[in-house]
Amino acid sequence: MVGAEALELDVIDEFEARLDVALEGANLVVIATPTLVAAELLTEVVGKLPPEVVLTDVASVKQNLVAAYQQASEQRGSEAIARYVPGHPIAGSERSGVSASRPDLFDAHRVILTPLADGSEDALTLVRRMWELAGAEVVEMPVAQHDAILAATSHLPHILAFALVDALSRSDLSDDIFRFAAGGFRDFTRIASSNPVMWRDISLANRDQLVAAIDDFSEHLAALRKAVAAGDGKALETTFSDARTAREDFIRQQQS
Amino acid sequence: MVGAEALELDVIDEFEARLDVALEGANLVVIATPTLVAAELLTEVVGKLPPEVVLTDVASVKQNLVAAYQQASEQRGSEAIARYVPGHPIAGSERSGVSASRPDLFDAHRVILTPLADGSEDALTLVRRMWELAGAEVVEMPVAQHDAILAATSHLPHILAFALVDALSRSDLSDDIFRFAAGGFRDFTRIASSNPVMWRDISLANRDQLVAAIDDFSEHLAALRKAVAAGDGKALETTFSDARTAREDFIRQQQS
Repeated sequence: MVGAEALELDVIDEFEARLDVALEGANLVVIATPTLVAAELLTEVVGKLPPEVVLTDVASVKQNLVAAYQQASEQRGSEAIARYVPGHPIAGSERSGVSASRPDLFDAHRVILTPLADGSEDALTLVRRMWELAGAEVVEMPVAQHDAILAATSHLPHILAFALVDALSRSDLSDDIFRFAAGGFRDFTRIASSNPVMWRDISLANRDQLVAAIDDFSEHLAALRKAVAAGDGKALETTFSDARTAREDFIRQQQS
Repeated sequence: MVGAEALELDVIDEFEARLDVALEGANLVVIATPTLVAAELLTEVVGKLPPEVVLTDVASVKQNLVAAYQQASEQRGSEAIARYVPGHPIAGSERSGVSASRPDLFDAHRVILTPLADGSEDALTLVRRMWELAGAEVVEMPVAQHDAILAATSHLPHILAFALVDALSRSDLSDDIFRFAAGGFRDFTRIASSNPVMWRDISLANRDQLVAAIDDFSEHLAALRKAVAAGDGKALETTFSDARTAREDFIRQQQS
């Protein structure tokens, strides 16, 4: 059982499977489940918490959680509900489960918060402070900007890696392909080892932004395919060279 | 100058820019240039070498070099020419140039040789031995099989990485995209830092196999896009899960 394993590994101090009991006396609640469960859980948890409690989450898509919170708020009319600060740590790996826990996971990583327009300043300060204590750097941005950036930098690359490994594994040559693949392939496909349920939920929750990102990528891929088919070395070299420059700028920026 | 730098870094014992002088007294010649230059150089070198010399190369595509050799052979009619053993070490990185040299580059890596049907056994033995002395494991396969496998495991992933970085760098959000990209993105795009001329040549030399690989990938990507757009969570989870299993099998195989 996951609770027992987490206790044994000293990842958590206490485990409580009953939601009502777990929430008793909480002043800060962090929802950390796959994206679609997080939206359901947020609705349920909001109904059980007094308004002074602060609620946050770690999901990779923010719009569906914000929508769930706003709906819960509307249903309660003028009654105050627990204050919600949407959050997303840009940290993690392809590994999942309790055994993949790391105490330094958030060290020198960024956490994006997407505060609601009419949200509580105190709640924001509390969530910000939680992340800073875990070693992270906190930045704020609007929900739509967050979801578009994550579609491009994370959700699209995962879709490409899953699509590539799936395509190759169904090829006639698949045995040889995997036998002779090298380090570049291993790195390129690392994210295809990620949790399928987590990525199913992210793909569904960020559907519109992800479809737009896939379409934009597909256009660029089609242009490269055309250049390859036409033997247009100049177009290929220009694109490859521009991409290399852009990536090296990115690496320099990360290191600074 | 590259020769002086290579001498200074102790990567080479001697440097000679004049081809005729460099080839004098050679018994084994290794061509190590971008793919299209390699084909031209092979033709030129064959014309200068006595038939007892053995010739090999390290290019990522084999069919164009084999064709260049066969053409050179036909032009010489019944006259014997230097014996050619096409080779390709599955090793390297996104870095290029003399300063990226590493003495252990071939340790525990595979080298694929694609010997000609009527090729010399002695020549094959010599080239095999050279690679084994460098620490590599040598395997043999037909030219077409090599080029198809490399299109899938290496050439296609490079095209995808170049296309992704190019697409994102031209996006309205590109500053934020590169600012908030994390480790998964860094690994996924590492190969987009590769040498543009080398990859232009590889793309052109392996055109047919690469176009087929892009088309196969594009079909799988289109199927995933359709599942995302339709909100088909079951299809997404199945593909992601199959891909994860295939990649984990690949990693286990690499480790064993």
